[in-house]
Amino acid sequence: MRIAFEISYDGTNYCGWQNQKNGISCQQILEEALKKLFNKKTNLIASGRTDAGVHAKGQIAHFDCQTTIPPEKIALAINPLLPDDIQVLKSYLVKEDFHARYGAKQKTYEYAFYISPVKVPVFERYATRIDGADLDKMQSCCDTFVGTHDFKCFLASGSKVKDTVRTIFDARVFVDGDFLRFRVTGNGFLYNMVRIMAGTIVAVAQDKLTVNDVEAALFSGDRNAVGKTAPAKGLTLLSVKYE
Amino acid sequence: MRIAFEISYDGTNYCGWQNQKNGISCQQILEEALKKLFNKKTNLIASGRTDAGVHAKGQIAHFDCQTTIPPEKIALAINPLLPDDIQVLKSYLVKEDFHARYGAKQKTYEYAFYISPVKVPVFERYATRIDGADLDKMQSCCDTFVGTHDFKCFLASGSKVKDTVRTIFDARVFVDGDFLRFRVTGNGFLYNMVRIMAGTIVAVAQDKLTVNDVEAALFSGDRNAVGKTAPAKGLTLLSVKYE
Repeated sequence: MRIAFEISYDGTNYCGWQNQKNGISCQQILEEALKKLFNKKTNLIASGRTDAGVHAKGQIAHFDCQTTIPPEKIALAINPLLPDDIQVLKSYLVKEDFHARYGAKQKTYEYAFYISPVKVPVFERYATRIDGADLDKMQSCCDTFVGTHDFKCFLASGSKVKDTVRTIFDARVFVDGDFLRFRVTGNGFLYNMVRIMAGTIVAVAQDKLTVNDVEAALFSGDRNAVGKTAPAKGLTLLSVKYE
Repeated sequence: MRIAFEISYDGTNYCGWQNQKNGISCQQILEEALKKLFNKKTNLIASGRTDAGVHAKGQIAHFDCQTTIPPEKIALAINPLLPDDIQVLKSYLVKEDFHARYGAKQKTYEYAFYISPVKVPVFERYATRIDGADLDKMQSCCDTFVGTHDFKCFLASGSKVKDTVRTIFDARVFVDGDFLRFRVTGNGFLYNMVRIMAGTIVAVAQDKLTVNDVEAALFSGDRNAVGKTAPAKGLTLLSVKYE
């Protein structure tokens, strides 16, 4: 039977979601726990990779297994085999043709900032410090993201992906207690796309770029015409939706 | 001249504020950095101790020094000598009779909870998981704290402090994004007092205790009549006020 996991992880100590030669990945930790639980090598397929240091609140992944444990209890069974910074929030039975990666229709990411002239240790783990903000300008920048566009200018340079057209359903900035959050929902994201968007929003807030510059960059596809790639630690994959 | 620091630290990796034989304290890290900066042993006095694992957003501490660095620049000078999880947010000149501990008139602590059937790694560092909540009951419990009371029942058993009367100016629970926060302001707090208050609020929300039980405990002074001591990690010293 095919099981889906909703997974949360603190990415600080991992080389990212995907197995790599150097460093320990979230996938590796989870696959090792699945192997212990089912006494069998189990391949776990996620909705997509997350970079080193990126966090997840609701990553989705699937795997196949044969077990007498009821699907919704597998989360409870595997969590004691996992470290505190990677836990399964939910497990549930899915159809045999469910695919965590190819079936994903919508993903929501959040990038967190906090405003301070100096680093605040209790905010640093999940957010990036900025000196100031201008919510109206930042939201105007977000507005340019919404819709179906060629997001080539928001693709990490060096990436070889060919189809750079994606649809952004929603993009907004809002104040949430001590944090300023940039939340974006789309049908998919290019490598580093949300982090470059976050860096671009900050550049617009700081008058280093105008909203017109960002619109022009969407046409030109020039990576150098938008902002820097914001640090990984501020980014969290919030949720993934399927049909 | 006497200088005050506003300090933030992530307490996860420390044995608390105060120097101890076992473990590394925040005080020790800061005093070592001060020694490097001023080339002289410098004693740092905080508004009060925080326990192992407790965080601070705005701990206040003072020290005496002779330096040509302008007071407000000392923070910038010392921060590069400090680890990322302890940073000085502000430094400023205070009067010679300023005393971070004896002069403190008001302290505000916050205890953070999140509601989930399972542990969520990205919430675990600064908050404690609870299964459910009842905001009205929790606020009613908070209301019993407000005022000048003998808080003996909220004192860690074994503590030898004699005067257990404190004044609580404000105590409230509120939803803040994914968190449920208990924020309490008083003229001072007994050892473990906020953590026991937090545990008591949860016991009331879970119908293990009634608000009447809490009121009765304030009269009887019986530590066993109130809730458990909530884990250190959920507690943050928010601010300290002086005259």
